[in-house]
Amino acid sequence: MKYLSQEEAQKIDQELFSEYSFSVDQLMELAGLSVAVALTKAYPKGTNHPKVLVCSGPGNNGGDGLVAARHLKLFGYNPMIYYPKKSEKQLFKNLVTQCEKMDIPFINEIPTATQIDNDYKLVVDAIFGFSFKGNARPPFGDVLSALKEVKIPVCSVDIPSGWHVEDGNPDGIKPDFLISLTAPKLCAKHFEGRFHFLGGRFVPDSLGQKYNLSLPEYPGTEPCMMLQAQ
Amino acid sequence: MKYLSQEEAQKIDQELFSEYSFSVDQLMELAGLSVAVALTKAYPKGTNHPKVLVCSGPGNNGGDGLVAARHLKLFGYNPMIYYPKKSEKQLFKNLVTQCEKMDIPFINEIPTATQIDNDYKLVVDAIFGFSFKGNARPPFGDVLSALKEVKIPVCSVDIPSGWHVEDGNPDGIKPDFLISLTAPKLCAKHFEGRFHFLGGRFVPDSLGQKYNLSLPEYPGTEPCMMLQAQ
Repeated sequence: MKYLSQEEAQKIDQELFSEYSFSVDQLMELAGLSVAVALTKAYPKGTNHPKVLVCSGPGNNGGDGLVAARHLKLFGYNPMIYYPKKSEKQLFKNLVTQCEKMDIPFINEIPTATQIDNDYKLVVDAIFGFSFKGNARPPFGDVLSALKEVKIPVCSVDIPSGWHVEDGNPDGIKPDFLISLTAPKLCAKHFEGRFHFLGGRFVPDSLGQKYNLSLPEYPGTEPCMMLQAQ
Repeated sequence: MKYLSQEEAQKIDQELFSEYSFSVDQLMELAGLSVAVALTKAYPKGTNHPKVLVCSGPGNNGGDGLVAARHLKLFGYNPMIYYPKKSEKQLFKNLVTQCEKMDIPFINEIPTATQIDNDYKLVVDAIFGFSFKGNARPPFGDVLSALKEVKIPVCSVDIPSGWHVEDGNPDGIKPDFLISLTAPKLCAKHFEGRFHFLGGRFVPDSLGQKYNLSLPEYPGTEPCMMLQAQ
């Protein structure tokens, strides 16, 4: 399986929208669903309703987190959302309304690492995706500091936030779970957590061939697959 | 579980878009995915790539069919699409492009019942949904006549096309498979085929309570559930 450079990831993303005419609504829905399903596989809910803190960033990665939160709620989890920099785009406003109307609480401040450990079973890191470069702007620097300290599993969507898309980040967060969307990015080679999933089952064969993705075959009708469990 | 009148079905649909701010793209994606998954459960593909004829009508029911065809392709089936009255809406144009780019053939004329029996393993009836009233306009009258004659399984999306949404149609098609989306409509009580599924797992609890839907609990993370197999 191929691990993508930032440029390849951007080109594939662009091509899905331009060449294949997918809408962001469609692919974000499928991506977020695959995130939620993968989380249930790695961290089964058992007989209770585990509290999950979903941290959403300002862009599409954050949108994947909002969709995942909604599906987690339908799967019997108890998500709460921290989404400090809300996008003005209509799709994102809609995603917020959907979550609010499904009684998913939004919190206005990121709790301390200790509070997160006390109050939640999991944290979903949907802060930055493959477009991220440079340094995290406020308040996300503080969020990443908290996520570096927490002891409960940190679950990253597509890219561990704050990592370089190709080189990773030896001083960054150390997620327990990573779900690569569409195809893994090069930084995933530096992932040392327990669960690595692939999700976003919407890649046309022709696109996979064009970029030599060599994706493994998804099992049955599953929206995600486990690549590695340590 | 409640069986919906036409008016209730329309109100719930409307509320999902207005009150809960879902986009058609989102719900059609989830609905079509649930159709495709349910089909794989009722008619497992085995070791080959079963040919499936998807007949799409002019409205949203037809769109569900287009989405289902795309997911069936990803699941290893071999769908072909008959979509004679293409919508001019951008979403539908996009759905067509997505299918075309995924090498799903479109056919221009409905084959005879004998040809359908010879060439396909299944027919998906995504012609009319819960808004249908009265008589089918050309060419769908001929399509329904063919679907009444075929011996391979006819699989209806939400409503067996040509049926009255509440009263059914004793002279209409006799599908082997029905997937009710969101909640069953009253006509589903007249369904006598082998497989009745529920799909479209996106109904917020509050909406289910408002309309007393009493939906059964979906298993695990499945997008659909079997209500009845005879």
